[in-house]
Amino acid sequence: MARSERVNLAEKLARFSDRWSPKVVETLDGYGIKLVKVQGEFVWHSHSEEDELFLVLDGGFRMDFRDRQVDLAAGEMIVVPRGVEHKPFAAEECSVLLFERRGVVNTGDAEAGALTRPERQLV
Amino acid sequence: MARSERVNLAEKLARFSDRWSPKVVETLDGYGIKLVKVQGEFVWHSHSEEDELFLVLDGGFRMDFRDRQVDLAAGEMIVVPRGVEHKPFAAEECSVLLFERRGVVNTGDAEAGALTRPERQLV
Repeated sequence: MARSERVNLAEKLARFSDRWSPKVVETLDGYGIKLVKVQGEFVWHSHSEEDELFLVLDGGFRMDFRDRQVDLAAGEMIVVPRGVEHKPFAAEECSVLLFERRGVVNTGDAEAGALTRPERQLV
Repeated sequence: MARSERVNLAEKLARFSDRWSPKVVETLDGYGIKLVKVQGEFVWHSHSEEDELFLVLDGGFRMDFRDRQVDLAAGEMIVVPRGVEHKPFAAEECSVLLFERRGVVNTGDAEAGALTRPERQLV
């Protein structure tokens, strides 16, 4: 049986510095709780099968949709439903907690590019 | 298609004061992101089919297991795997974000009692 352990988010965030590369810190059913650092502009993409939660832990970022933009600060979150095109943008570095199904690739259904990363376990 | 909206956790927390009664603020696939305020001692219980995430937003609480206790402060989280008996305790009021399958009853497989609450949508 899995043993549940305390996870300190700040301590986990201190253990990596690369951006746009989600790190799995816990799992729940078939889902991953992941941490990611973002800065700059991501690519337009969507995920055909998965909804995706973004919860800002530190800093802030803007989620662009095709028809609008949503600014998010620490303590704010947004769920992007499956199939909805989105593109995160962060002027300054921002730390985000993601909740999404295990195995999701960050660039979704977009063609793999320079920012494409498989999820990784934080070691 | 669902429209994604910004959710400010502090603003949502300000809208209720009852304890041990999880409020759904967002959904993702078949899962709920819920907010709950806790204080005092809950009951021993487990959930046979669902893992459960607890992320402390404000304050702190202690998760008791049959063989140990885990103290959790703001910015810390724990996943309680399905089938594992647990009992939260908070000396002072504490605000927690839950992530778990929709429809989970807070007292799980324990006999319904004074603290049993179905999840509710935060209106």
